[in-house]
Amino acid sequence: MLSGLFSSYPTFLVFLAVFVSIVVTLLLMPGWIKFLRSSHIGQQVRDDGPETHLVKQGTPTMGGVVMLIALVVSVLIMGLPTLESYVLMAAIILTGALGLFDDASKVIHERSLGLTPRGKLIGQFAIATVFVVIAVNCFYIQPTVIIPFIATIDLGVLYTVVPIGNGALYLPWLYIVFADILLVGLCNAVNLTDGLDGLAAGTVLVVMLVMAAIAFRSNLLEPAIVAAAVGGTCIGFLWFNAYPADIFMGDTGSLALGMGLGCLAVLTKTEFIVIIIGFLFVAEALSVIIQVMHFKRTKKRVFLMAPLHHHFEKKGWSETKVVIRFWIISGVCAALGFSLYFASGLAGVA
Amino acid sequence: MLSGLFSSYPTFLVFLAVFVSIVVTLLLMPGWIKFLRSSHIGQQVRDDGPETHLVKQGTPTMGGVVMLIALVVSVLIMGLPTLESYVLMAAIILTGALGLFDDASKVIHERSLGLTPRGKLIGQFAIATVFVVIAVNCFYIQPTVIIPFIATIDLGVLYTVVPIGNGALYLPWLYIVFADILLVGLCNAVNLTDGLDGLAAGTVLVVMLVMAAIAFRSNLLEPAIVAAAVGGTCIGFLWFNAYPADIFMGDTGSLALGMGLGCLAVLTKTEFIVIIIGFLFVAEALSVIIQVMHFKRTKKRVFLMAPLHHHFEKKGWSETKVVIRFWIISGVCAALGFSLYFASGLAGVA
Repeated sequence: MLSGLFSSYPTFLVFLAVFVSIVVTLLLMPGWIKFLRSSHIGQQVRDDGPETHLVKQGTPTMGGVVMLIALVVSVLIMGLPTLESYVLMAAIILTGALGLFDDASKVIHERSLGLTPRGKLIGQFAIATVFVVIAVNCFYIQPTVIIPFIATIDLGVLYTVVPIGNGALYLPWLYIVFADILLVGLCNAVNLTDGLDGLAAGTVLVVMLVMAAIAFRSNLLEPAIVAAAVGGTCIGFLWFNAYPADIFMGDTGSLALGMGLGCLAVLTKTEFIVIIIGFLFVAEALSVIIQVMHFKRTKKRVFLMAPLHHHFEKKGWSETKVVIRFWIISGVCAALGFSLYFASGLAGVA
Repeated sequence: MLSGLFSSYPTFLVFLAVFVSIVVTLLLMPGWIKFLRSSHIGQQVRDDGPETHLVKQGTPTMGGVVMLIALVVSVLIMGLPTLESYVLMAAIILTGALGLFDDASKVIHERSLGLTPRGKLIGQFAIATVFVVIAVNCFYIQPTVIIPFIATIDLGVLYTVVPIGNGALYLPWLYIVFADILLVGLCNAVNLTDGLDGLAAGTVLVVMLVMAAIAFRSNLLEPAIVAAAVGGTCIGFLWFNAYPADIFMGDTGSLALGMGLGCLAVLTKTEFIVIIIGFLFVAEALSVIIQVMHFKRTKKRVFLMAPLHHHFEKKGWSETKVVIRFWIISGVCAALGFSLYFASGLAGVA
């Protein structure tokens, strides 16, 4: 809507997207917290987490619902109505819905289990696959992975042609497999990161603002606005999620944010660079994988507790210190990835 | 030094200045903390602050010393050796030295008093005046205040010519008075803001990165590098200053940071916009002034406690929540000021 007014000042559209998103989140969240509190809908804390976290029992969850609303409102106000932004938002919202289903079932069953891990994964893979297929076929995203200073690796070597309507659906299988793993991986990595007050919101915030800058510099205004709106809602959410948290984002938030990050990487052709930008999420996920695999083999633990943030808590860092230090690491990684993106002359490739 | 190598990539110089500054701070701070701890040099907490802050008693202070070292190292490595950057750094370091004298005297006298407020102010005004005179005469900074969308207000209407060496020293008195008040005001505003773990470091960090962007876009590479280096050392300092703090920056840090901000505003001709960018510091200072003046007149308090951050603590926000919320407000103000700077076509004026 505002896009007409400001179309000659695209920078302002991106800034305003952040701002609107913050304001909507700040306006809606207190009511949502009140509603959840009065309905006694609180988080069931995993009983295998650190003991100090038991005080979090009962804090409302599903803050991600308001984040998704803020995202949609902000993009609808700011955005140019392109198919690209709708598909991107659909992927984010559907993943959020999947998370919401999980969060809600946890509340109803009063157990921290919800959907089966298998069910979650199938849903995530389905959303990721549909998104990537549309991106490659409708948005002409090249099925390649660009690694700065090294090479462009063409993953579209094996493909099949499937006719759809008037056009043709090219399925470069290997790219789809790669992108699927990336998207679902990021989804779950952000989900794992969401274990301390403000940790996921703060790290995603930094990463999203950098993704917005990357999309903007690649002349992809729509994805830039979506990334900015996601960043904005993370800022608004932090207002309430700062230690000690009044509300958690839940899987609704964390899965949606991870999927959004992955989809933005596909649209901006930063499938490799996003691994550097979002390295903290990757490290959190790796810590769990390494811990589990190493324990299965040797019955010994590599980390005092996985995911990584619990390891440092066990090492004696206070929760707030872990969070702010992880934000710093996340910021440095994001700056590193951003620099690499420009140094390698990738700007404008997408 | 590195400036030759990267001179065709000025963006990287600014990024690297942040990075080097972080690394130097991270490397030196643990040793400094250890030294202060072993020498039993700890903060004397004001006994008129909130009671919950008494646990902070004994935490080492003067972390600003390492911040200043990191700043110098980073600028010397990155910077182009121009007079501008040396004068800017001199102003920052001298103000830091003034603060250090105060911090040290507090430690020695074991009281939270140090230098007389009068002595501090005289020192700050002296440094500010010398800086502004040099800026106007050697760096050709116009003695004007630019208010976006409104007007350029010429404060140089009254001036005297004082011959100095070969040149002539023009003293546009009103501008010097205005700039002096701005610089000393910011000095003390940041000093007042430095009352909660991570509050000053986080807010100055945001503000400095925006000032670096403004300086960079005005083709003032040297001030941009200094601002970036200051921002970087704030990031590094936050690593240790995050709640619960291992060290405080002390007046050494907060006065120097405030002076640096003011000097950067003069060099980038954002003397008015810096008030928006650093509005949080202004609000903190105003809260104290309003509180004191109102109390003197009516014997009633406007705020539960001044400066502002203590007011919100008294209202029941936890320290960590106040800090993160103030960071958010600071970020929004900085973005607002930055937008205003560009919208008004000021980029490149300096």
